[in-house]
Amino acid sequence: MAADDRMEKIVSLAKRRGFIFQGSEIYGGMAGTYDYGPLGIELKNNIKALWWKRFVHDRDDMFGIDAAIIMNPKAWEASGHVSGFSDPLIECSKCKRRFRADQLENTEKCPECGGKLGEPRQFNMMFKTFVGATEDAASIAYLRPETAGGMFVNFKNVLDSLHPKLPFGLAQIGKAFRNEIAPRDYLFRLREFEQMEIEYFVHPNNWEEAFGMLQKAMLAWTEEIGLNPKHVHEHEIEKDSLAFYSKRTVDFEFDYPFGQQELYGLAYRTDYDLKNHAAASSKDLSYFDEETKERFVPHVVEPTFGVDRTVLAVLTDAYHEEEVGEETRVVLKLARAIAPYMVAILPLMKKDGMGEKAKEIFATLRKKTRVLYDESGSIGKRYRRQDEIGTPICVTVDHQTLEDGTITIRDRDTMKQERVSLAQLEAYLTA
Amino acid sequence: MAADDRMEKIVSLAKRRGFIFQGSEIYGGMAGTYDYGPLGIELKNNIKALWWKRFVHDRDDMFGIDAAIIMNPKAWEASGHVSGFSDPLIECSKCKRRFRADQLENTEKCPECGGKLGEPRQFNMMFKTFVGATEDAASIAYLRPETAGGMFVNFKNVLDSLHPKLPFGLAQIGKAFRNEIAPRDYLFRLREFEQMEIEYFVHPNNWEEAFGMLQKAMLAWTEEIGLNPKHVHEHEIEKDSLAFYSKRTVDFEFDYPFGQQELYGLAYRTDYDLKNHAAASSKDLSYFDEETKERFVPHVVEPTFGVDRTVLAVLTDAYHEEEVGEETRVVLKLARAIAPYMVAILPLMKKDGMGEKAKEIFATLRKKTRVLYDESGSIGKRYRRQDEIGTPICVTVDHQTLEDGTITIRDRDTMKQERVSLAQLEAYLTA
Repeated sequence: MAADDRMEKIVSLAKRRGFIFQGSEIYGGMAGTYDYGPLGIELKNNIKALWWKRFVHDRDDMFGIDAAIIMNPKAWEASGHVSGFSDPLIECSKCKRRFRADQLENTEKCPECGGKLGEPRQFNMMFKTFVGATEDAASIAYLRPETAGGMFVNFKNVLDSLHPKLPFGLAQIGKAFRNEIAPRDYLFRLREFEQMEIEYFVHPNNWEEAFGMLQKAMLAWTEEIGLNPKHVHEHEIEKDSLAFYSKRTVDFEFDYPFGQQELYGLAYRTDYDLKNHAAASSKDLSYFDEETKERFVPHVVEPTFGVDRTVLAVLTDAYHEEEVGEETRVVLKLARAIAPYMVAILPLMKKDGMGEKAKEIFATLRKKTRVLYDESGSIGKRYRRQDEIGTPICVTVDHQTLEDGTITIRDRDTMKQERVSLAQLEAYLTA
Repeated sequence: MAADDRMEKIVSLAKRRGFIFQGSEIYGGMAGTYDYGPLGIELKNNIKALWWKRFVHDRDDMFGIDAAIIMNPKAWEASGHVSGFSDPLIECSKCKRRFRADQLENTEKCPECGGKLGEPRQFNMMFKTFVGATEDAASIAYLRPETAGGMFVNFKNVLDSLHPKLPFGLAQIGKAFRNEIAPRDYLFRLREFEQMEIEYFVHPNNWEEAFGMLQKAMLAWTEEIGLNPKHVHEHEIEKDSLAFYSKRTVDFEFDYPFGQQELYGLAYRTDYDLKNHAAASSKDLSYFDEETKERFVPHVVEPTFGVDRTVLAVLTDAYHEEEVGEETRVVLKLARAIAPYMVAILPLMKKDGMGEKAKEIFATLRKKTRVLYDESGSIGKRYRRQDEIGTPICVTVDHQTLEDGTITIRDRDTMKQERVSLAQLEAYLTA
């Protein structure tokens, strides 16, 4: 498959099977937004729940939080986003449209209306709104451009309520917004997106150890969600290209259909954030070590995961076309842990009690796992339908099931079928 | 406890124990927003997951979706929010502050600056922002004031991809935003809040059946999350007070510390929404019944649940003060299904291998349920700490545990202790 072709096929499958739709599609869309359909939200929820399990529940050093999207604007002044989170844009003096300076061809006229172009200026990428009864400078607020700010403003709250000892991390999953001038590449560059982010607080001497530990955990995560290790590239950002406050950054890049681009990021941010928030809020954001009697502002290592980019990467590596006989089989080889459904229950026919038996199995399994019931169309068509939505296992109920209690289990990836007893089914599902 | 006192105590406990903090607290707050801390996000996530299980996964007639917060503004024109979602406000001609007309005392002067007040005018409660490269009328967009719009714009997408048969519902959990002039009463009236909402699509003849079914399901839900049935009141909205498109609305009200107020709502909205979206988008949003060969625009029954109000109601009914000996015990009697932690593992002392044994039990249980480990302070203090965060069961590991493998189980509500074998623990947890 050509790269473009592959992207198109993934987008088409995602729409056809109810994973992902264009945002506000019936109104001609809303650039930079996508809506998750019934299958997509299950996939996304599974990814988020698995991340929370691995990075919060399974660990002793992580605490979840959930901060508001609309924060006090002083937080974004302190973080540098109000002054520095901007793109150089050129405005047309006539139609007032703005263009990214680096994307304008060598032209002195507006590509839209032919009007005269101005000088490049910095335009802030944060979405702005007005909160309260007046629309003036004092009531301006921003939609957060990243979830990180929520962890920094709550650092002291968590210290004061749970008294955790360093090193510890604050983790958050939530929406973030950026007014991208040119949203592009499907779920890759969105105006509204979701992040899974950690701020990991350490003693300044221990940042390298934490960095290494988190780097390993991130890599293990990419494998757990089924990304091909050959498609994941750790890219050490060169010293010259680092943000001024960062002493080390590693980007995790992925081979999307449109090329190798950023998937996740891991940055050592020194004490830049806590020091700035402490100064701007006049609050003490230091930590006191009871054992060493040392007081200091913790340093931060920050792993950032884009949820939508994860979905896109997962779909990219899961999408397969295979020649089966004279047909092309489209199959999503999703990791079991994140597939929307773990198992589909399919009666060979509705009649002779097969439908009832299948529904009985369905009702039992539903209490234990993510299960789907489908009785419409030929069994071959139903297998293909489950292949397309990535269901790892199909269970077929036929005449023999009614006689001896055995069912047919069909594996999504190998297409092999095996007759087992109902009692064995559960073991098969947790294998 | 006096009502005010009770509210204050809940707010204080929620902050002290890491459930809920004021939004952007270190910056003096951000009115109408709250941040969830480590305990609060677990409680909230448990509520959301349980709702998704009951209203989506456990049912054959519900499909989840997750639409963008920033929708095409035409959707809010079609729904009537651009023209009609407003509060009557009076503006001061001098300081430009705005006040709710119904909250101004009999005065002709601005209560803030003494300036002259204008006539009451309608001010829209949707948060406005600008999307894209220009800030003009054509680039205005809104933060959704409710999640419902996302279901209506995706109705056709779901029909076309999953081909569900009526009746069926679309369910969504997500943030919504309203520029309330006077946010108040803690989590009750927020500017940024979360909704769990369903649009249930039916044949026009069948709305009453669906209404009754959903009304029952909502009531069962309030019981499952542990609300006292005596504190939940179904309030039939009188015909005269109904929105013009609604033929029946039932509010579920709750006895908050500040009085009886709305918790959830259930409204029959006829075909108002789909018809308006069809007209505004020029898309066919009708449904074709294969069996009766009838084509029609489905009618809608809409159950709406506020997530934050649920958290507030749950905390209100869970909060108890009890006299134990000469002390007052504060305990959150949270339903097992939603308590942040199901069980706490407490070694009587760290020494003599009790700490190790307790950690071993902790590691095993962690794979199966929400579990906490605590070894700091006296056992009495640790029990009280678990009471305050609503952990239903404490497991104490002592010298005898090392000898005969028994542990002490302590029940949060009765404070009764029972010595059982480790093997019995799991049954106890799932009881």
